[in-house]
Amino acid sequence: MDTHFKYQAIANQLEELIEEGTLKIGDKLPSVRRLSKKHNVSMSTVFQAYYQLENKGLIEARPKSGYYVRFSPSCMPQKPKVVIPKAEIKNVSIDEMISTIYANISSKDVLQLSVSAPSLDLLPIAKLNKSVQHAIRNEPNHCIGYEEIQGNLQLRRHIARLSFNWGGVCHEDDVVITAGCMEAVALSLKAVTKPGDTVAIESPTYFGIFQVIESLGLKVLELPTHPETGIDLDRLDRIIKDFKINACLFVTNFSNPLGCLMPDENKEKLVQLLATHQIPLIEEDIYGELYFGKSRPRTCKTFDKTGQVLLCSSFSKTLAPGYRVGWVLPGQYKKDVISYKLYHSISTSTLSQAAIAHFLENGRFENHMRHLRKALHTQSLRYLQCLSEYLPADARVSQPQGGYVLWIELPPNINAFDLYMEAIQHQVSIAPGQIFSTHGHHHNCLRLSFGRSYDQEVETGLHTLGQLIQKRL
Amino acid sequence: MDTHFKYQAIANQLEELIEEGTLKIGDKLPSVRRLSKKHNVSMSTVFQAYYQLENKGLIEARPKSGYYVRFSPSCMPQKPKVVIPKAEIKNVSIDEMISTIYANISSKDVLQLSVSAPSLDLLPIAKLNKSVQHAIRNEPNHCIGYEEIQGNLQLRRHIARLSFNWGGVCHEDDVVITAGCMEAVALSLKAVTKPGDTVAIESPTYFGIFQVIESLGLKVLELPTHPETGIDLDRLDRIIKDFKINACLFVTNFSNPLGCLMPDENKEKLVQLLATHQIPLIEEDIYGELYFGKSRPRTCKTFDKTGQVLLCSSFSKTLAPGYRVGWVLPGQYKKDVISYKLYHSISTSTLSQAAIAHFLENGRFENHMRHLRKALHTQSLRYLQCLSEYLPADARVSQPQGGYVLWIELPPNINAFDLYMEAIQHQVSIAPGQIFSTHGHHHNCLRLSFGRSYDQEVETGLHTLGQLIQKRL
Repeated sequence: MDTHFKYQAIANQLEELIEEGTLKIGDKLPSVRRLSKKHNVSMSTVFQAYYQLENKGLIEARPKSGYYVRFSPSCMPQKPKVVIPKAEIKNVSIDEMISTIYANISSKDVLQLSVSAPSLDLLPIAKLNKSVQHAIRNEPNHCIGYEEIQGNLQLRRHIARLSFNWGGVCHEDDVVITAGCMEAVALSLKAVTKPGDTVAIESPTYFGIFQVIESLGLKVLELPTHPETGIDLDRLDRIIKDFKINACLFVTNFSNPLGCLMPDENKEKLVQLLATHQIPLIEEDIYGELYFGKSRPRTCKTFDKTGQVLLCSSFSKTLAPGYRVGWVLPGQYKKDVISYKLYHSISTSTLSQAAIAHFLENGRFENHMRHLRKALHTQSLRYLQCLSEYLPADARVSQPQGGYVLWIELPPNINAFDLYMEAIQHQVSIAPGQIFSTHGHHHNCLRLSFGRSYDQEVETGLHTLGQLIQKRL
Repeated sequence: MDTHFKYQAIANQLEELIEEGTLKIGDKLPSVRRLSKKHNVSMSTVFQAYYQLENKGLIEARPKSGYYVRFSPSCMPQKPKVVIPKAEIKNVSIDEMISTIYANISSKDVLQLSVSAPSLDLLPIAKLNKSVQHAIRNEPNHCIGYEEIQGNLQLRRHIARLSFNWGGVCHEDDVVITAGCMEAVALSLKAVTKPGDTVAIESPTYFGIFQVIESLGLKVLELPTHPETGIDLDRLDRIIKDFKINACLFVTNFSNPLGCLMPDENKEKLVQLLATHQIPLIEEDIYGELYFGKSRPRTCKTFDKTGQVLLCSSFSKTLAPGYRVGWVLPGQYKKDVISYKLYHSISTSTLSQAAIAHFLENGRFENHMRHLRKALHTQSLRYLQCLSEYLPADARVSQPQGGYVLWIELPPNINAFDLYMEAIQHQVSIAPGQIFSTHGHHHNCLRLSFGRSYDQEVETGLHTLGQLIQKRL
């Protein structure tokens, strides 16, 4: 989070006081005049800080009285528990449920809380369109000819520079551009496995990961995953000794659906553990730039000395899902990844690449990301506050530190897919927990995306959802 | 070819007379005045017809004397012979040769005669850029959001309408949009085979086809292919009885590299034969719209009653290689093809799809294709004439009826890869025959693309190539 603005420093400080419980619900905040004197800033700066906290739903203004604490994270619902899947290797079966959900995913009348992506109003449409115009006018081949297999050089340079954010030292030649993160993951899997191999993944995990693994004739082994810190490393250590694991595929930062964030020291340990056993790690980091805290978390790639980590990411969660531009830093597997890219799709859209490369110039991307992070953080708090009101008291909800999704654990007698089927009748779409595991776990869980800006429609939708849940208790 | 212009009818008639040998080299053509009276057309119409024939290199104007026949297709070099590969199943090995050639493929200083694609000056850059601008302004999500997995509806409608050209009756819902033809082929292979299966292909064949087959863990069986009529159906019939063939992958119209055109009656027989044996056919038809004759050839899909033909194509050879937009009509395998598309790349670039969909409105595409076909036909004749001058007398050259490439058979003591290595030193890039077979056949053959507009640089390059060949005899 930015602290180079004075108002931001003040807002952060107050937010911490509220989080720690020093300032409690109902407490009156210092007057604007007093705070402006204390910090030696203008009154408008203090108003800006208060406005931000109000926007996040943490404080409220009472007419002719001043500002009061309205909500504290300590009032949030409890966080979800760890579910330990059985340590067994099995073939993934792709569920009819996913098809059902996909069939409703582009309906305009439905409140889409099931898609882990930004709503359009959070994206810089006008500036991106200017970048497209720049590309078709100024690129030597007007973006009509083939791009290099490895990808647009300028774009690879910008992506290499982004590695600075996560403490990496990476060169343009280390980057391979792909058609989105899914292609990056598919090419990485092709490069490090052969059909019949076993890939260890988190549990619960994004269903797209099961599907790409199954489609390549691979098996999965689901690992217990802590809702806040990710993969249990001790357990992984033991499992590696008992089972033949050919590769790992983890979402280390703000994983989908749990939203967990693997601590940086765990990342370092994980890389060492896998290096010892010579197991390649495919690290999906599409949410890494969407942190709500003070700094961007590191990646496993940061600690990779042997080139065994393949870092996959994309601009789909930050800039333009429809442009289909992602990348992989494939380490020692670069040659194979480039070959498979050539064999399966030749190269990525020249136009999409050139437009994004132009957008990444002159700080446009950094500026946009500052706004997007702030908006998502605010939205996550708004959604959480609303849920704490409408959900039953014993429901547990994750408190994500980044990304797009909330993971909700309901009382065990609730079947989330049944709830989905009923909610969709009320024009609300959620992602039921069952689709995030091959073991039939998480039947009483659901994933909610807060990528859509919070408004009356969202509140009404969450209210409806709460009523449907209460009815089932 | 268009015959609704009067000049075109006259030009066609004269061209036929030259082809049949009725008009011989050196013969004087009727005067412009006489022909205009005879056909009851203006003199400028006759000039236009003569201009076209002159442009194709078939006639020449001699000052103060009139027009004379300059060249006849009967003077063309002989056509290549059939090479019969051994009927054996083997694993494809991807050659170091291909890497060497790819390493030089984007060098600006080299005369690129090794890429089977249009040069930029043949493409409608300005109009396509307008379509891009239209798309980013007018599409509801400004092309930033995800497109449907199956693809842009308008685009699918246009592609369904194109099926009228090859005698198909196809609906927008039968079309799946892909990231270029290679992805269409890869998804089709995934849908109809499993690792270890055998796919029958033409020989020689485009090396990209070997590579995608190998990368999916499949085996190939190369079939003898006639340089003019394609796959030998009797032989295929016998081979199906001797070997377990799980799928066929053929380029039926203007195949790469031979340029052969399977007669429509053979297509019908092929479809019947494969239907009897329940073998799916992946039909690549990226060159089908690039016919030099009077009408577009049909496809196997035209005769498909069981849905066992998967027709793959793209706009890469006709409009915009870099946009990466192709499609497949997957017949009965549609569900699987869409699933694999989702698992591996989610969807195709929204922007590229919307821009092409707009370009396909209001006859822009048909208009462009008329020009492109005419230009390619003219270029093919120009290249052929030039080669007949510079190649040794016993060299054989294909006379393609469409597409982008010439196949040249040199005397047996010439090694085409050695020739490639020497030619690249002289800034000329060719595709040596060896890379089009896994059997080491065609060592004395090479493929030349005539996609680049004929000019002095091309003539000099072909001259150099001729000298290098003569030196090796």
